Amino acid sequence: MSEALDYARRLLAEASVTPATGSVFDALEAMLAPLGFDIHRFTRGEGEAGSDEAPVENLFAIRRGPEGSGHFAFAGHLDVVPPGEGWRFDPFEPTEHGDLLYGRGAVDMKGSIACMVEAVKHVPAEAGTISFIITGDEEGPALHGTRALIDYMEAEGIKPDLCLVGEPTSVNQLGDMMKIGRRGSVNIWLKVEGTQGHVAYPHLADNPVPKLVAMLAELDALTLDTGTDWFQPSNLEITDIEVGNKAHNVIPAEARARISIRFNDVHTGQSLSERVAAIAEKHGGSALPIISGEPFLTEPGSFSNMLADAIEAETGIRPEQSTTGGTSDARFLRSVCPVIEFGLCNATMHKRDEAVAIPDLDRLARIYTNAALGALALETE
Amino acid sequence: MSEALDYARRLLAEASVTPATGSVFDALEAMLAPLGFDIHRFTRGEGEAGSDEAPVENLFAIRRGPEGSGHFAFAGHLDVVPPGEGWRFDPFEPTEHGDLLYGRGAVDMKGSIACMVEAVKHVPAEAGTISFIITGDEEGPALHGTRALIDYMEAEGIKPDLCLVGEPTSVNQLGDMMKIGRRGSVNIWLKVEGTQGHVAYPHLADNPVPKLVAMLAELDALTLDTGTDWFQPSNLEITDIEVGNKAHNVIPAEARARISIRFNDVHTGQSLSERVAAIAEKHGGSALPIISGEPFLTEPGSFSNMLADAIEAETGIRPEQSTTGGTSDARFLRSVCPVIEFGLCNATMHKRDEAVAIPDLDRLARIYTNAALGALALETE
Repeated sequence: MSEALDYARRLLAEASVTPATGSVFDALEAMLAPLGFDIHRFTRGEGEAGSDEAPVENLFAIRRGPEGSGHFAFAGHLDVVPPGEGWRFDPFEPTEHGDLLYGRGAVDMKGSIACMVEAVKHVPAEAGTISFIITGDEEGPALHGTRALIDYMEAEGIKPDLCLVGEPTSVNQLGDMMKIGRRGSVNIWLKVEGTQGHVAYPHLADNPVPKLVAMLAELDALTLDTGTDWFQPSNLEITDIEVGNKAHNVIPAEARARISIRFNDVHTGQSLSERVAAIAEKHGGSALPIISGEPFLTEPGSFSNMLADAIEAETGIRPEQSTTGGTSDARFLRSVCPVIEFGLCNATMHKRDEAVAIPDLDRLARIYTNAALGALALETE
Repeated sequence: MSEALDYARRLLAEASVTPATGSVFDALEAMLAPLGFDIHRFTRGEGEAGSDEAPVENLFAIRRGPEGSGHFAFAGHLDVVPPGEGWRFDPFEPTEHGDLLYGRGAVDMKGSIACMVEAVKHVPAEAGTISFIITGDEEGPALHGTRALIDYMEAEGIKPDLCLVGEPTSVNQLGDMMKIGRRGSVNIWLKVEGTQGHVAYPHLADNPVPKLVAMLAELDALTLDTGTDWFQPSNLEITDIEVGNKAHNVIPAEARARISIRFNDVHTGQSLSERVAAIAEKHGGSALPIISGEPFLTEPGSFSNMLADAIEAETGIRPEQSTTGGTSDARFLRSVCPVIEFGLCNATMHKRDEAVAIPDLDRLARIYTNAALGALALETE
């Protein structure tokens, strides 16, 4: 029996609702330091709790291999989403019940980080350099999290060759899916201005709402693409409309809406923003885009094949190479080196009674060991 | 010089932002009682100030003519809309400046009521029965105003033959327009329910917004009619849309909108509500109508001709017989007897620095005298 379960319990016992600082990082540092890692912790953000500028802690740990050896990085986050109400057990008092270990973060992703720690114990120092890129803000605005860690690495001249993010990518059973890419994401605020007036005298007013409706109808009817070899079709959702006019007899002066586009690598955030802006302007409105992330793809090849081999060796199944789902910090790490995401089953992530199957912890730790060994071997070849 | 200006000053000096009670009614009672009117005042509504059930005062005054004579009613309101900021003079301290008398209610419609009082002094009691139907809530919800006065008259067995409402119908000069009808008004609340979800997984959600957008686009494209001999085309305005979804990555569970239709006598509130509901249901939504008023038309004929004659005799111009604009209490009074609206110039109504041209007061009083005499003559014939 490995110590993965014990590591997981120790991390889950520290309440670390996003953004995380302090004791949960102390716990991880206490695990890594005895394994020969040099650890650098730093906090960014000086705003009030609850603001986008609330303090965020980050940890970078490195165990250097021989000169000229490869460098493989594990990446992840110690912050968790709020537990919400109605849990069977205290969400921050890890509880074993049957085959399951309950606790907020069990699969997303303290459980995975526990497996990473266990994994590196079985990777000889001679095999190469191993690092941990761990943030306390992946679930929040992510302004001062992995981005700050990347800045730190760059300033220190540290550059991993390959990176594995421990997001819970498995769906029905451990090993059935890994993520070799993610779609990009852009939110666009739309606005039409008109002239307020009385509904009884519409000729004296200019109602902006029909223009917004026509704009949204045209946007909703767009087919952005039909998908690619590795990506599903890009998708546009109208997520909000707001006029805010309480007076029944008044034609409002302004109408606003917000759309969200998840897009594949046929597009860029910029190209989509320009396309939407042209439609908005055609209908007398304007568009303000905020690009959350560009799409990325780690082309299937030696890295993904090696990882799939390691997964199949442990679980007997070959993982699907997916690009579905939401964004993750892989969107930032892709600028450093090829990134793939693989971790525990995600059925309970962000939900009440989040739990991990205890046997999966040892299995994932073994997969991570072989992934690290395989990755370092690839880079040393 | 008549006393119309003095009456107007006395009414304007009483602040009576809707709903009105008390002193402004005392002032009117003090004018009418010496002229031989029996006066009944009553208050309805027991709710808090600011609520739809706030107390409203009403006044019914009657001077009975000989047995078998006709009955002509003046109708109006003593409440005013809030003055707002930035007036040249105190809005409740009537001020003469040049040819103008300033004060909130100068044209809408304390000035007109002053003219009615002056007018009846010149109508002999033998000519017939004259009444005043005066409410303190025309500008507000109008739940306990003219409707309560109609209930009172019905209970007392009092039924005017013809009624003149003193709304400010003149546009560029006194006498250029009277209103022989009004459009109906219905507000309809539209709703589409869907299934909330994450924008990255749209197949697990059901976004209600595109359905609402398609529904609104179809409603906005409707041509309800092309107008009639006496009415302009009916008009539909989208007055509000509300999704209320602050989360950028969430597909919302519900989307709502509100439309306002001003419609002519080709339609009823019911027929339009059913038509909109059918379109809403086609797009997976529902519709909740609230009918504020049905359209009405006092067909041009002896009443309107007589009134137009009286106006032309005083002003030299023949009034347009219009059905444009918003609603008024005529929508309720139409159930009692034929109703026409005629009063002062409306350029400053509901605006800062509301003011009446002082010479118009005497002129309107003379028109009202001749209108009353003419109406009673029509009914006695």
